[in-house]
Amino acid sequence: MIAQTPQPPYYAVIFTSIRTAGDDGYGDMATEMGELAARQNGYLGIESARNETGITVSYWASLEAIKNWKAVSRHQLAQKYGRDKWYESYKVRICLVERDYEF
Amino acid sequence: MIAQTPQPPYYAVIFTSIRTAGDDGYGDMATEMGELAARQNGYLGIESARNETGITVSYWASLEAIKNWKAVSRHQLAQKYGRDKWYESYKVRICLVERDYEF
Repeated sequence: MIAQTPQPPYYAVIFTSIRTAGDDGYGDMATEMGELAARQNGYLGIESARNETGITVSYWASLEAIKNWKAVSRHQLAQKYGRDKWYESYKVRICLVERDYEF
Repeated sequence: MIAQTPQPPYYAVIFTSIRTAGDDGYGDMATEMGELAARQNGYLGIESARNETGITVSYWASLEAIKNWKAVSRHQLAQKYGRDKWYESYKVRICLVERDYEF
């Protein structure tokens, strides 16, 4: 699905990751985090795909909204599990979307 | 692969797409475009994944580098084929990466 975001400017969080082997609760938590993110103030949408590399881009109205989402306690637990067992490595990029166009 | 980008600020182009059915030359052109992009001035890296949704994020040193890459003639042909036959729909977002961190 392509996220139906409003006119720029808005923010994107690009989360690129390499998983460890096995599920170990990852799939259930990923689903839960997707649902929980969608209930946050300032949430604008999400896009996700994974092969060897996984890319999840979430869209937000402000830096404040991103900071608040990062601090949600259940999300903090997911971040801890991510570092402890689910991800070999990841990179997070906080971006200002300046322009967009579509087909 | 997670792109090894320099310290922010730099730019990201998030290309999110839904493919049509069948390959029809898409795979070869995607490979060619990946190689061609990597030879452009200001190219910093690329990340890509596809399930039902495809996400390709390319990283660039400046808006000028993004504009120049969009205008490369072989890339323009790929963009035309993309609209004519490979993509059901797509969205392009031009972003300023303000901050990043990794694990």
